[in-house]
Amino acid sequence: MKSRAAIAWEAGKPLEIAEIDVEGPKQGEVLVRIVATGVCHTDAYTLSGKDPEGLFPSILGHEGGGVVEEVGPGVTSLSPGDHVIPLYTAECGKCKFCLSGKTNLCSAVRATQGKGVMPDGTSRFSIDGKKLHHYMGTSTFSEYTVVPEVSLAKISNKAPLDKVCLLGCGVTTGIGAVMNTAKVEPGSTVAVFGLGAIGLSVIQGAQMARASRIIAIDLNPDKFEFARQLGATDCLNPSDYDRPFQEVVVDMTDGGVDYSFECIGSVNVMRQALECCHKGWGESIIIGVAGAGEEISTRPFQLVTGRVWKGSAFGGVKGRTELPGYVERYMQGDINIDDFVTHTMKFEDINEAFRLLHDGESIRTVLNF
Amino acid sequence: MKSRAAIAWEAGKPLEIAEIDVEGPKQGEVLVRIVATGVCHTDAYTLSGKDPEGLFPSILGHEGGGVVEEVGPGVTSLSPGDHVIPLYTAECGKCKFCLSGKTNLCSAVRATQGKGVMPDGTSRFSIDGKKLHHYMGTSTFSEYTVVPEVSLAKISNKAPLDKVCLLGCGVTTGIGAVMNTAKVEPGSTVAVFGLGAIGLSVIQGAQMARASRIIAIDLNPDKFEFARQLGATDCLNPSDYDRPFQEVVVDMTDGGVDYSFECIGSVNVMRQALECCHKGWGESIIIGVAGAGEEISTRPFQLVTGRVWKGSAFGGVKGRTELPGYVERYMQGDINIDDFVTHTMKFEDINEAFRLLHDGESIRTVLNF
Repeated sequence: MKSRAAIAWEAGKPLEIAEIDVEGPKQGEVLVRIVATGVCHTDAYTLSGKDPEGLFPSILGHEGGGVVEEVGPGVTSLSPGDHVIPLYTAECGKCKFCLSGKTNLCSAVRATQGKGVMPDGTSRFSIDGKKLHHYMGTSTFSEYTVVPEVSLAKISNKAPLDKVCLLGCGVTTGIGAVMNTAKVEPGSTVAVFGLGAIGLSVIQGAQMARASRIIAIDLNPDKFEFARQLGATDCLNPSDYDRPFQEVVVDMTDGGVDYSFECIGSVNVMRQALECCHKGWGESIIIGVAGAGEEISTRPFQLVTGRVWKGSAFGGVKGRTELPGYVERYMQGDINIDDFVTHTMKFEDINEAFRLLHDGESIRTVLNF
Repeated sequence: MKSRAAIAWEAGKPLEIAEIDVEGPKQGEVLVRIVATGVCHTDAYTLSGKDPEGLFPSILGHEGGGVVEEVGPGVTSLSPGDHVIPLYTAECGKCKFCLSGKTNLCSAVRATQGKGVMPDGTSRFSIDGKKLHHYMGTSTFSEYTVVPEVSLAKISNKAPLDKVCLLGCGVTTGIGAVMNTAKVEPGSTVAVFGLGAIGLSVIQGAQMARASRIIAIDLNPDKFEFARQLGATDCLNPSDYDRPFQEVVVDMTDGGVDYSFECIGSVNVMRQALECCHKGWGESIIIGVAGAGEEISTRPFQLVTGRVWKGSAFGGVKGRTELPGYVERYMQGDINIDDFVTHTMKFEDINEAFRLLHDGESIRTVLNF
């Protein structure tokens, strides 16, 4: 079948809107009509060429909401008409990782997903006979996309897809890192480095977890108003200080915060985030994705004296099990997504959405097909 | 009063056995007659001059067992005749750290302990009118030493002090890191880097925690027999492999271990210990003390994909609360200390005990006064 899509032909070039060919779903696969998709920094990172695992040409996009159009052989948990959120972190329920009870990093489709193909090793996307790669197992920048059954969370048909699509990445990643990875307790102090959609979602999660103090940190003070609205009690711009920023946070919190979150992808900030944690128990969670080959470092004394260094991917959330609940909480008003959608536009304006993200003018743009 | 003691006059020089002057206990302090003391790598580290916080001249030693001789004003929990183990990690029960329930790093006497003096800012040790520094709040290389009440664990009078003195550091640090810091579950896989007294105690702790596989790692294969006796299932010498050692461990454990412990103090080994952990949940615990200014590093991807980097001091054990239980478990045969005492000698031979430790010929030498 034919589908409108945005093709990433090569690194650093704008996407091209074109009509591509989409093959029907094979064994264990599902054809999804994407209704809306967000544009995330990870898409921009890959498009920039900095992602060493980026493949071209490809169909990017991983923050979508859609409707099941057709299911392939063997698919039992989904039917045409079901509303779904594609998952870049699958949940098969059967692999060593899923069965461990300790992680959301399902291994079912990981190897082929990383190679930009479906589990059988081939792509469903092409144009003029030329194959296009899949991306993160989701490729939501195509009106019709093919996704493994294990990579689709079935959600309420009542939820607005042009909002809950953001639960496919940013909002869930932030809230999940607070709830699943850090397990922030009521009364805790929290520092959040970087106020993009993920950092702002961490603030929202910390507020939900009833943290007593939430310190929001960004070089762009334009981000502070929304941060406060979501629950930040203090907003700091590191450029206002001429000493190591971890000291600033330690001094204002009587020894450091209980939990910190790095939502930027800067290895220098990751160190600050660790070292502003309280001796004896402070935990720092890395969410941001650093540049290829970059390394974090610190003195081991930081850990021997009780700080803990962790990371989180998709907020530790098992998508098929947990995302339906996130959608319910959104519909009950417990999770704010609407205010994260600063811009809405039609799919064809996708390059403008990337520009807004790059220039820090948007939190999230949602594109409607 | 007069006391036999070993004086560390300056870095890199042998200790001098001499008769020193010991002042009686002041407010909140206790005079302890040390019956036996171990010699630990931390004593050797400070004596070597590599410890940037090392102070000279001083009375080293922190792995002792003794008897309360006299209590100062205000001391309520101890009386003459009580058997005690001095603690380099105090437990006041009242500070922010003790009350947190999250750490054993009591802050009560920390500041003055680090300066080599008692909480009132002065020393109880001198020779010919010249002040000598205290060390780690314990100074067990003196037959009579003065220790804050909060730095003494009262133990059973039936326990042999020339054995349970090792619970003052090495044995407890290793077992505690397994039980309190890592919380190893039955069936876990464990890697232990470095088979000194602490690493061997980690093996013992992992065996007590019913780990299913315990991989013991050292460059000196002479350590392997005792490691096996304590429960190691595999013994590896990294010099037998010509590829990154973390890969060796990952390959032999189907993806990595559940828990690893660094018991050496090498920042390169700390990285190996982290990176040999299983994706999704593996936790690495740093116990070893690195050289001044040295830093650990890794790619943040290691943490984002679920590994956790932690540290442990004195095994996370709250000494006054928990050490009496460790002593009981030793007396019931549940904790092996006897086999850690490879050498016993009289206190005057202390420099020979340092030599044995340095040359890897001893696990622990216990010195009897």
